[in-house]
Amino acid sequence: MNSETFAICEQIVSTAYVRQGVQARRTHEQLIRLLLEKGKCPEEGWEESTIELFLHELAVMDSNNFLGNCGVGEREGRVASGMVGRRHYRLIHGIGRSGDIAAVQPKAAGSSLLNKLTNSVTLDILKLAGVRMVSSCFVVPMATGMSLTLCFLTLRHKRPKAKCIIWPRIDQKSCFKSMITAGFEPVVIENILEGDELRTDLQAVEAKIQELGADNVLCVHSTTSCFAPRVPDRVEELAQICAKYDIPHIVNNAYGVQSSKCMHLIQQGARVGRIDAFVQSLDKNFMVPVGGAIIAGFDESFIHEISKMYPGRASASSSLDVLITLLSLGINGYKQLLKERKDMYVYLANELKKLAEAHEETLLETPHNPISLDAKASSLRSKSTVDATTFLGPQKYLNCVCLCRVVPRGSVQTVNGYTFKGFMSHASDYPCAYLNAASAIGIKKQDVDLFIKRLDKCLKTLKKEAVNVSQGTETENLNSQNDVDVEELCEI
Amino acid sequence: MNSETFAICEQIVSTAYVRQGVQARRTHEQLIRLLLEKGKCPEEGWEESTIELFLHELAVMDSNNFLGNCGVGEREGRVASGMVGRRHYRLIHGIGRSGDIAAVQPKAAGSSLLNKLTNSVTLDILKLAGVRMVSSCFVVPMATGMSLTLCFLTLRHKRPKAKCIIWPRIDQKSCFKSMITAGFEPVVIENILEGDELRTDLQAVEAKIQELGADNVLCVHSTTSCFAPRVPDRVEELAQICAKYDIPHIVNNAYGVQSSKCMHLIQQGARVGRIDAFVQSLDKNFMVPVGGAIIAGFDESFIHEISKMYPGRASASSSLDVLITLLSLGINGYKQLLKERKDMYVYLANELKKLAEAHEETLLETPHNPISLDAKASSLRSKSTVDATTFLGPQKYLNCVCLCRVVPRGSVQTVNGYTFKGFMSHASDYPCAYLNAASAIGIKKQDVDLFIKRLDKCLKTLKKEAVNVSQGTETENLNSQNDVDVEELCEI
Amino acid sequence: MNSETFAICEQIVSTAYVRQGVQARRTHEQLIRLLLEKGKCPEEGWEESTIELFLHELAVMDSNNFLGNCGVGEREGRVASGMVGRRHYRLIHGIGRSGDIAAVQPKAAGSSLLNKLTNSVTLDILKLAGVRMVSSCFVVPMATGMSLTLCFLTLRHKRPKAKCIIWPRIDQKSCFKSMITAGFEPVVIENILEGDELRTDLQAVEAKIQELGADNVLCVHSTTSCFAPRVPDRVEELAQICAKYDIPHIVNNAYGVQSSKCMHLIQQGARVGRIDAFVQSLDKNFMVPVGGAIIAGFDESFIHEISKMYPGRASASSSLDVLITLLSLGINGYKQLLKERKDMYVYLANELKKLAEAHEETLLETPHNPISLDAKASSLRSKSTVDATTFLGPQKYLNCVCLCRVVPRGSVQTVNGYTFKGFMSHASDYPCAYLNAASAIGIKKQDVDLFIKRLDKCLKTLKKEAVNVSQGTETENLNSQNDVDVEELCEI
Amino acid sequence: MNSETFAICEQIVSTAYVRQGVQARRTHEQLIRLLLEKGKCPEEGWEESTIELFLHELAVMDSNNFLGNCGVGEREGRVASGMVGRRHYRLIHGIGRSGDIAAVQPKAAGSSLLNKLTNSVTLDILKLAGVRMVSSCFVVPMATGMSLTLCFLTLRHKRPKAKCIIWPRIDQKSCFKSMITAGFEPVVIENILEGDELRTDLQAVEAKIQELGADNVLCVHSTTSCFAPRVPDRVEELAQICAKYDIPHIVNNAYGVQSSKCMHLIQQGARVGRIDAFVQSLDKNFMVPVGGAIIAGFDESFIHEISKMYPGRASASSSLDVLITLLSLGINGYKQLLKERKDMYVYLANELKKLAEAHEETLLETPHNPISLDAKASSLRSKSTVDATTFLGPQKYLNCVCLCRVVPRGSVQTVNGYTFKGFMSHASDYPCAYLNAASAIGIKKQDVDLFIKRLDKCLKTLKKEAVNVSQGTETENLNSQNDVDVEELCEI
Repeated sequence: MNSETFAICEQIVSTAYVRQGVQARRTHEQLIRLLLEKGKCPEEGWEESTIELFLHELAVMDSNNFLGNCGVGEREGRVASGMVGRRHYRLIHGIGRSGDIAAVQPKAAGSSLLNKLTNSVTLDILKLAGVRMVSSCFVVPMATGMSLTLCFLTLRHKRPKAKCIIWPRIDQKSCFKSMITAGFEPVVIENILEGDELRTDLQAVEAKIQELGADNVLCVHSTTSCFAPRVPDRVEELAQICAKYDIPHIVNNAYGVQSSKCMHLIQQGARVGRIDAFVQSLDKNFMVPVGGAIIAGFDESFIHEISKMYPGRASASSSLDVLITLLSLGINGYKQLLKERKDMYVYLANELKKLAEAHEETLLETPHNPISLDAKASSLRSKSTVDATTFLGPQKYLNCVCLCRVVPRGSVQTVNGYTFKGFMSHASDYPCAYLNAASAIGIKKQDVDLFIKRLDKCLKTLKKEAVNVSQGTETENLNSQNDVDVEELCEI
Repeated sequence: MNSETFAICEQIVSTAYVRQGVQARRTHEQLIRLLLEKGKCPEEGWEESTIELFLHELAVMDSNNFLGNCGVGEREGRVASGMVGRRHYRLIHGIGRSGDIAAVQPKAAGSSLLNKLTNSVTLDILKLAGVRMVSSCFVVPMATGMSLTLCFLTLRHKRPKAKCIIWPRIDQKSCFKSMITAGFEPVVIENILEGDELRTDLQAVEAKIQELGADNVLCVHSTTSCFAPRVPDRVEELAQICAKYDIPHIVNNAYGVQSSKCMHLIQQGARVGRIDAFVQSLDKNFMVPVGGAIIAGFDESFIHEISKMYPGRASASSSLDVLITLLSLGINGYKQLLKERKDMYVYLANELKKLAEAHEETLLETPHNPISLDAKASSLRSKSTVDATTFLGPQKYLNCVCLCRVVPRGSVQTVNGYTFKGFMSHASDYPCAYLNAASAIGIKKQDVDLFIKRLDKCLKTLKKEAVNVSQGTETENLNSQNDVDVEELCEI
Repeated sequence: MNSETFAICEQIVSTAYVRQGVQARRTHEQLIRLLLEKGKCPEEGWEESTIELFLHELAVMDSNNFLGNCGVGEREGRVASGMVGRRHYRLIHGIGRSGDIAAVQPKAAGSSLLNKLTNSVTLDILKLAGVRMVSSCFVVPMATGMSLTLCFLTLRHKRPKAKCIIWPRIDQKSCFKSMITAGFEPVVIENILEGDELRTDLQAVEAKIQELGADNVLCVHSTTSCFAPRVPDRVEELAQICAKYDIPHIVNNAYGVQSSKCMHLIQQGARVGRIDAFVQSLDKNFMVPVGGAIIAGFDESFIHEISKMYPGRASASSSLDVLITLLSLGINGYKQLLKERKDMYVYLANELKKLAEAHEETLLETPHNPISLDAKASSLRSKSTVDATTFLGPQKYLNCVCLCRVVPRGSVQTVNGYTFKGFMSHASDYPCAYLNAASAIGIKKQDVDLFIKRLDKCLKTLKKEAVNVSQGTETENLNSQNDVDVEELCEI
Repeated sequence: MNSETFAICEQIVSTAYVRQGVQARRTHEQLIRLLLEKGKCPEEGWEESTIELFLHELAVMDSNNFLGNCGVGEREGRVASGMVGRRHYRLIHGIGRSGDIAAVQPKAAGSSLLNKLTNSVTLDILKLAGVRMVSSCFVVPMATGMSLTLCFLTLRHKRPKAKCIIWPRIDQKSCFKSMITAGFEPVVIENILEGDELRTDLQAVEAKIQELGADNVLCVHSTTSCFAPRVPDRVEELAQICAKYDIPHIVNNAYGVQSSKCMHLIQQGARVGRIDAFVQSLDKNFMVPVGGAIIAGFDESFIHEISKMYPGRASASSSLDVLITLLSLGINGYKQLLKERKDMYVYLANELKKLAEAHEETLLETPHNPISLDAKASSLRSKSTVDATTFLGPQKYLNCVCLCRVVPRGSVQTVNGYTFKGFMSHASDYPCAYLNAASAIGIKKQDVDLFIKRLDKCLKTLKKEAVNVSQGTETENLNSQNDVDVEELCEI
């Protein structure tokens, strides 16, 4: 409504009441104006009513919602199902143009604003989360892995000779496959064991560069967020090596936005050395549905080159999710979530330590990993009497019930033709089996408490089981995942 | 958004695209402006996006959505559940004030607009539907029966001596109870049989008025829409009698808005005689959920008196439903629904006639009833060999499966101490049992076709059954409603 | 889905995952089963996903959502607008039958369950909130005032001779009108001043009964929740008087469910004397939209008589709102809200006291009012130099900005022919003007803080103004409500 | 609910009504069972209530909606914003696993079912639409161009030597960039003019293969749907060439599903020659929001290889949209849309022909293009007097207002270093400028009528303008897009 319509309203209900209403409306509009003006995440989260009002305003600016529209093109933003239209707030046109995923679209001012604002607001959040020097970013509706692929494909055009990517090992399939899919050969650098921690072998990296020749290396592909006992890569030093040899550096920061340590590593890397782009998952850092990522960097023109590599218009769904989420949280809400996560990490560490001690196990010492923790699992360790099959039961058991990971020793896996010894443990021969838990964004105290309770019960069961096994007793129940009674455990 | 915000938008995406968007927005705003200005139902139905935009605009004008609100009153429009807030589009304040259900509220400009507009738009529709002289109406979130009660309670203050209401019989509990609840004695005037039709006995009405004395009569309470073979009351003549004796006249027009004949009767009654108010159901005429009514009349001050009788603020839910519905249909959409209903009445009549003939039954001749129809049901008629209990089965059977009504002969029912012989048939002794079907708004050809198919199957089954019964065979299956296999029948 | 469909699912995704899913589903179903079995509000609130699942399940049981439906009746639950259907979760049939608002409906098992469960869950809450002896209640989609009217109309049939209702004065229009609308003469009993409090004059009540004759009195109509300095009626003693004279007793408990004191009064009244029904607002006690009430009592058959007085089916909207709200809050959530309200009452009292003292005013001592508070307002008191018109400005000013009430001395108002001296202050001549604030359910600390800040600013402005006025300066600005700049104040 | 809960329901409302309700529910469940069992699009579209019930059922099977969940992993499907959760029907886990976008996920049985069913239902639709031999497909939440890239990246692993892709020219940026992004060199084959049509130059293709050597060619990349006067490639003959030289063949079928001719070409190609994969847009064929594609083929193992190339889990949003849409349309609804599109193509052709003749222009003869049409545009042709800048105005003018495309002669554009003469016209030197319009799925008669009206007005304006231009008159108004008054034109 506008001043003209309000004047009419005053003739229907009293002037005074309408004026109050108009002033009330202005409080919402004021928020919207500020967002558009600053392009930053608001301090305080918005009410749902303001967010919905804003999205409605955007939607009516798109041509598919233009009431006098006549469509004789090949794509007109028509939607067959009302359910579908509504769930996208009638923002149908997606983001970007065939030439550039970050570009504005002629027929869709609303969707274009959504795209630009989302990129602007997420940039603001990346800065706040610790990478103060970041200069450009864009949201892409693809998995972190696929987004890394897009970065590598972009680099190919700059380094046509390069065939391989140097990659300090991390046992996670997507990031490994991101290199394979892009058509490059991953050169795996094994981590070195320092105390309980697995850390980047900087000397091996540099040696490998010299061996291969810098021109033959597309980039170094490092990782921040990871499961303990692996810890974030020595990003700062890797960035310096990259600068020294003039090799691009892409950082997989999958769920690192939630950790000030991970973000600090990237900030430092960019300050003292070279980082071309860093990629983070939307769902893991912003509590939105799976499927989007942010590609960010320090050189606007390079980030723009990446955005121009996406052929076609992309789904606005991930952008919409993250924008709604950040508007509803506000900076304060997001900071609060980060704080809670950190607090819960400490709490989880303490509780896990107590439990481990009660079961005569120890917590691995991994001070450099700000998110995840491990308890040694001797009771789970494969003894001569407990063969691999036997072990499978408890592992799945814990995975599914407690939603944590049990990592055995010595499992071997082949991914796209590459064989990994000790897969899942980030090392060919990590000294022990262990159980991994993480304090990720959104975690609550009751999650930790329930986990500790269940784990306690599990460990007791498993020990009894282990005794039985060593005595030759049947363990069928635990081996068969189908028999895991989730419900029973949840009633703990 | 406003011109200021759009200017900012132009700096984010291109000026040209934003201007297109603003123009697109204006097409929606133009519709809203027209609605506010004219207070009439739009010719063409609105898109959902326009309706939602409009409701959002209304909602932000209400104080509970005022972002700087601080509530220290006893009712602040706070909503505990987000689901509840959303389903009411955050219009929480209801309609009216303690003094008057049609009044505007200080804290709720949006809800007040909703209330005023709904009453204005429904008034427009009542005129279009045939009561051109109607001058005032309001939507009330109460059943038709309870709304009639409110009318009677209002009349009490004008006619303190009156104790009884003259009421041409119609066998529907709510309208009978509406008089009881209001504390009056219904004086039932039996209908007279003309051909197959049951019509108002005007002489009996006039005789009764003379017998009781006009001052002792609160009002005449007549009915338009009803099940055949009863036909709409002779409203015109009743209105003349009311004028003659200076007795108020309240018309129960429950589902009569959908019928031009019923509406014409009211228009004529008001033109040549006296009608004080006529009451219609929202759900039966406008395809909204159950629970609201429109109280309308020709004397604005009397209708206002009624609206002032409702003690307290009322739910806006019914108003919201009917406003959304009429905006989405538009006049053209509503007219189309009325036309289809009329067409389907003719189609249903023809199909029912064919079926009746095939089963050697006849259709009752009830040309004055524009909505419902009856097929004689000799096969269902209570013969000496088929006792009441036996009959119960098929009746329920048809009621539940075909969603039509079977009306037996001679059932007796006592309602609030009043005994009705031949209850359901609107007469003490209607000559035959029959089956009733109606063509109500929203009916589709497939409804009729499916009904005819099922009825055919039913009648065949029942005839066989009847034979069995007369031969002493067990009929338990049909007697027990629990055994009706709805699904099986639906697969016809 | 059912076991058969799950078996098919297992062929699509793995058996183990489906079984987990089935077990996950069972956790939701378990909650639903418990609700149905116990008919009580769950301890812990439900997730929205469980509530939605439940409502979907109810909806598919209603005949309008029966896919093989063929409708040839006069009302088929058809809905013209998808928006409307969705917002009611496709529960279209309303509640009750023409004979009884609490009855089940043949075509609508889902809506009938909704109705029964809502009444059962609210009964549970009334017990928990303090009226342990309550035996029956039902939700009605009408304002508290209209619901009181329904109670009075029901009593009329039991006491045909009675013409008047004894009513200890409370200055709120709806409850006064509830008696007028029902056609009875209110006999107003003025309150007596005890300290700062206005309390029930028991002797006057008893004297009036004797004067009128018990048979001529329809009932005593008492009130619990009210604005200070009036305090809740002496319900216990009134109940004893009613028992003594065999007169029905209806309690207006408008927003009393949120106060353990109000509920305790009712419980005690029923224990030691006579209470026939007590009526409470849904929106004021359960944070739902305006328009519903609960009618409750201790004699199931009398409450049933009231429910049978509603002529017609009623809207399910209020029932749906309160059920959703209570399921989402759970008992713990509701108790938490009650606790916060109580805490905020104490906080508000302290803050208001401090402010009053700073402005050299005092807080009225009203220990018997558990919800609302008053600060004397000498600065607002009408002096000879400040005429009524002048006063109007500040009053509206405060009402609209602070959402609190300023009560002047000596205003006179005529409602339905009855003249009230000192209207709004519950007494003909309360000794001072005052400002009233309440701590109602849902209030937050920030509401209180903001209110205190604004009030402080207001009082300062008004004092300055008063000085000006007494000096003959123009006060136009404050007189004209149109000039109140809400926004400016909200920026405090 | 299940049989146990229904038994409880029977104690609350009557047994008979609950049984009816259960049977009603079964009608919905029956549909769901059939879908799961057959994995095919239902004949008749589902009601929204059935679709919502189904999605709720899926959602509760995902672990994030598991009420007893305790999350200590790094991603738990937590959602910060309720708005976001709801709009995804709480299906948060995305689709696929790090290893394979088509794989099932341990924590998400519901999302996995969604993924599998969507792929299965879309496969069914591809068959129905004409590619009867298609054996496998999957939905991917990426643009058609990016999906083509993924196909090329997959082929790289099979043909490590190949560096280039043979591509009959089509002037659309995304499909060109899809090859660039994948790191290959597009070898552009110019089309040949046959009559007014631009058709595949088969001899040039074969010659180029021989010239380059088959091993050096990654694949032939052909196109079906395109703007006239280019017509679909000779897919059948290309498939034969590919088979002959053992070269993979990828078909860009962007908006070809809606055209039986395009689908027939693919079916024939696969029958007589070689097609490895064909890729189609979701939004252009199924009226869903932008951003998804279907990758389909005839060899299940190759399609599976592609799906395994996507590194990471992907957004389920596109899958959800297309599944909802197809369930709501049903086969009959989708066929109806296809039929309407075809009818409107004929209607548009006739209307355009009439208009062209009225303006002394002609329609280009492009019988092989089943979707789009061109009117020659002599009045728009660049004459010596009308320079490029001048032309820009009308072009944009028409583009934006009529949502159609004006294609000038001789524009030159460089994309990723490749220069295209006559860009937009699919040929270096198409003989004339023309205006293009299409009949795409979802088009309505009123779209065509409005387009024709506006075009008529446009052409008249432009002619007048052209006269002015040739006379040296100022044309600023038309040159500046900012001055285009969309609203005014829409009021035609």
